Amino acid sequence: MAKLYFRYGAMNSSKTALLLTAAYNYQERDQYPVVVKPGVDTKAGRAVHSRLGVSRDVDVLLGAEDSLIAALEAHRPLDQIDAVFVDEAQFLTPAQVDEAFTVAVVLGVPVLCYGLRGDFMTRSFPGSLRLMEIAHSIEELKTICRCGSKAIFNARLVGGEFVSQGAQVAIDGEQASYESLCGKCYLDKVGPLTASTP
Amino acid sequence: MAKLYFRYGAMNSSKTALLLTAAYNYQERDQYPVVVKPGVDTKAGRAVHSRLGVSRDVDVLLGAEDSLIAALEAHRPLDQIDAVFVDEAQFLTPAQVDEAFTVAVVLGVPVLCYGLRGDFMTRSFPGSLRLMEIAHSIEELKTICRCGSKAIFNARLVGGEFVSQGAQVAIDGEQASYESLCGKCYLDKVGPLTASTP
Amino acid sequence: MAKLYFRYGAMNSSKTALLLTAAYNYQERDQYPVVVKPGVDTKAGRAVHSRLGVSRDVDVLLGAEDSLIAALEAHRPLDQIDAVFVDEAQFLTPAQVDEAFTVAVVLGVPVLCYGLRGDFMTRSFPGSLRLMEIAHSIEELKTICRCGSKAIFNARLVGGEFVSQGAQVAIDGEQASYESLCGKCYLDKVGPLTASTP
Amino acid sequence: MAKLYFRYGAMNSSKTALLLTAAYNYQERDQYPVVVKPGVDTKAGRAVHSRLGVSRDVDVLLGAEDSLIAALEAHRPLDQIDAVFVDEAQFLTPAQVDEAFTVAVVLGVPVLCYGLRGDFMTRSFPGSLRLMEIAHSIEELKTICRCGSKAIFNARLVGGEFVSQGAQVAIDGEQASYESLCGKCYLDKVGPLTASTP
Repeated sequence: MAKLYFRYGAMNSSKTALLLTAAYNYQERDQYPVVVKPGVDTKAGRAVHSRLGVSRDVDVLLGAEDSLIAALEAHRPLDQIDAVFVDEAQFLTPAQVDEAFTVAVVLGVPVLCYGLRGDFMTRSFPGSLRLMEIAHSIEELKTICRCGSKAIFNARLVGGEFVSQGAQVAIDGEQASYESLCGKCYLDKVGPLTASTP
Repeated sequence: MAKLYFRYGAMNSSKTALLLTAAYNYQERDQYPVVVKPGVDTKAGRAVHSRLGVSRDVDVLLGAEDSLIAALEAHRPLDQIDAVFVDEAQFLTPAQVDEAFTVAVVLGVPVLCYGLRGDFMTRSFPGSLRLMEIAHSIEELKTICRCGSKAIFNARLVGGEFVSQGAQVAIDGEQASYESLCGKCYLDKVGPLTASTP
Repeated sequence: MAKLYFRYGAMNSSKTALLLTAAYNYQERDQYPVVVKPGVDTKAGRAVHSRLGVSRDVDVLLGAEDSLIAALEAHRPLDQIDAVFVDEAQFLTPAQVDEAFTVAVVLGVPVLCYGLRGDFMTRSFPGSLRLMEIAHSIEELKTICRCGSKAIFNARLVGGEFVSQGAQVAIDGEQASYESLCGKCYLDKVGPLTASTP
Repeated sequence: MAKLYFRYGAMNSSKTALLLTAAYNYQERDQYPVVVKPGVDTKAGRAVHSRLGVSRDVDVLLGAEDSLIAALEAHRPLDQIDAVFVDEAQFLTPAQVDEAFTVAVVLGVPVLCYGLRGDFMTRSFPGSLRLMEIAHSIEELKTICRCGSKAIFNARLVGGEFVSQGAQVAIDGEQASYESLCGKCYLDKVGPLTASTP
C-alpha cells in the first residue's frame, strides 16, 4: 500500500533540496515523479528552487480551488505516475490533503509532502494541520538555531525586529524575513507562546 | 535542554503500557517521574491502566482549568521532578501544552506526552493539535489493523455499527466502542474522510 | 512485503515489555504471533519475563544449531503465523538472522527482533551485527543513564566493580550484573572504548 | 552533549547531497563545519561530489593510519569547529570511529557520518560496523529499488552481470558498477544471503 508522507521542518531545513534529491532518485530509476506546488507561494513562480543551487520546474501548479487529482490527471494519467512530491505543502487546503490521501491509499501512488509545520506564531497552517492528522508517516527535517540547538520554530522579522503578531502568510524576502529558532531562543527573542490565547 | 515529546498512536497501540514502562525506567534509576492525566477521561479514575495488566496510580489529575505547572508544584517541587509523563494527552488544553513546553524548555524537566492523534472523524483533539505544533519530538506508536496493516485511525462503533458523525468525545466502553483501522479499511468501513467538509 | 525489524536497546530498555506488548496487539486482533527465544539465555527458561511483571511462555526455544524456519514450522504451519517475535535477538546466529530475512521477504511473515546492540565492551554480538547489516528497519528503544542522559552502552560489574575485560556472555544476576550507561559515564567509569584494539 | 550520528543508506540514496545540504545549513548560520573523507575512495580526489550537481572540496582527507583528532586539529583548532561531517564513512577504521565518538562526547563537537551500511555481499564495512556499535543515533537514508520498493542492499555488476563474490572494495565506475536493490530483488538477481557462510 502506498503512503502519504509529511516531512516537515523549520525554514532553511533544506526541504526543497531534499525533495529534489528524492524526486531525482525516482527519475534515475526510470520512474516518473510529479512535482506539485500550491499556488499561494509566488516567490519563485513555476520553479522549485533550493538554496544550494539545484532547481527544477514544477509539473503542477495547484490553485486553492483546484482538485489535486484532476490536476495530476491533466498532467499525466495517474497510472503512469510513480510518485507525487509536494513542495510548500503547508499551503495545501485540507480538501487537497484528503485527496492526497486518496491518491496514496486508493490509487496506490505515494505522495511525499514537504512543508513547514507552523507559522511565525507557532500555529499550524491548514495544510500542515491536516497532514499531521492523517499522514501515514511524519518525519522531521532538521536544521539548527543560531545557538547550535535544533531549530523548531520560524520567527518573523519585519524591519530587522522579531514580531509576534501579523498575517499568517507574508512571503519571505518581500514583506518579511524569517529565522529558524530553537524553543529557548524563540521564547527569549519573540516572547511566550501565544497559540493558546487566540 | 529538556524536550517536549508527543508519542501518538491509534487506540490499542499500548500507549499506557509504554508510558508505564518508561516511567518505571526512571524509578529504577532512583529518579522521580510524575504521571499526569487530564481529568476528562473518567474511564479509570485515578488509575493509569494498561490492557496488559500493569497499572499505577496517577500522581496528578489535571482539570481543564488547572495550571499544569501549579499542579505539578502542588505535588512536589519542580526541581525534585526528573520527568513528567502525561497519559491521554489529547485531552490537555492548548494552554496546558504551552505550559508543558515551558516545563521542558525553561525548567529543564522532560515532558513525555502519550495520546491519540485524532478522533473517530480523523480530526485532531485540541491537545494533540497543539502538541503536533510545538513538540520537539513526534513519534508514532504502532498498532495493527484487522487486515494486518498499520492502523492509523480510530473508528467509532455505536451498537456495533461504524458511525461517521457525533460528539468528539464518547468514552470507550460506555457510550461507544472503538476499533483502530488502517487508511484503506477506514475508507471501506466508515466512508470518505470528512474533516475537509466541516 | 513483510519486513525484518531490529529494535535494539541497552539493558533495562524494556525490550521484553515492548515485545510482549506488541505481540499482545496481534493476539487481540485474532492474529497469531509466535515468540522465539535463542537458547543461550538460561536466565528464565521458557518464560519471556518483563521487569514490569508481565510474562509469557515462549513458543519456540531455538538452539544455536537449529534452523529458525524448521523450528517455526514444527510449532505451526508458516501460513498460519502472522508475525514472529524474537527476544534476546543478539543471541541469534548469523545464519538464523539470514533465515529471519527469508521468513519476512520470501514467506511474507514480519519478523520483529528485540535485542542488545552490544556487549559490555561495546562490541556487537553475532546476532546483532547481522541484524544491523540486513534488517529493513533499525529502531532504538531508549532508556536512561544514572545521570539522566540516554544510555547507549551496557557496563558489566563483577563484585560491584566495573570491568572492561572478560567473556562476551555472562548472564545477568549469576556471574555478573549490568548497568546501562551513556557514553560519557561509560568513558568515566569503565574506561576508553576498546573495540579498536582487539 | 554532542552526539555521533550514523546516517546510512544504499548507493544512490543521496548521502552526499544530504551531507552537503546539512553542512550548508551550518555555514549559513556562521558556524564552521569540517568535511572529512577517508582516503580509500579515490573516485573524486578532494572533491565531495553529489549526483545532483552540488559539490564541495573536502577539508580533511584522512588516511587509514591517520588520527582523526590530529587531522582535525591540523586543519583548525577543535574549539573553533562546530560540526564534523564524514563522507564515505564506511571507510573509516574502527579506531577512527572511536575517535569520532571522543570528538562528540568529550570535546563536544557533533560528528555526522554518512556512509554505506554494507558491501555487495551484504556484509558491513569496518567503519560501518563500528558506527552501528557505538553511534548515538542511527538513521536510514532511503532510496528505491528498480521495482519501486525501498532499496536496502548494494548489488555489484561486473561486465553487466550481478556477482556474489569478490573483493570488498571495487570503486564504482572503474572496476565495477553498482545497483541498489530491495531484499526481494537482491535474492532474485544475486542469490541467497552469504554472510552466514564465510
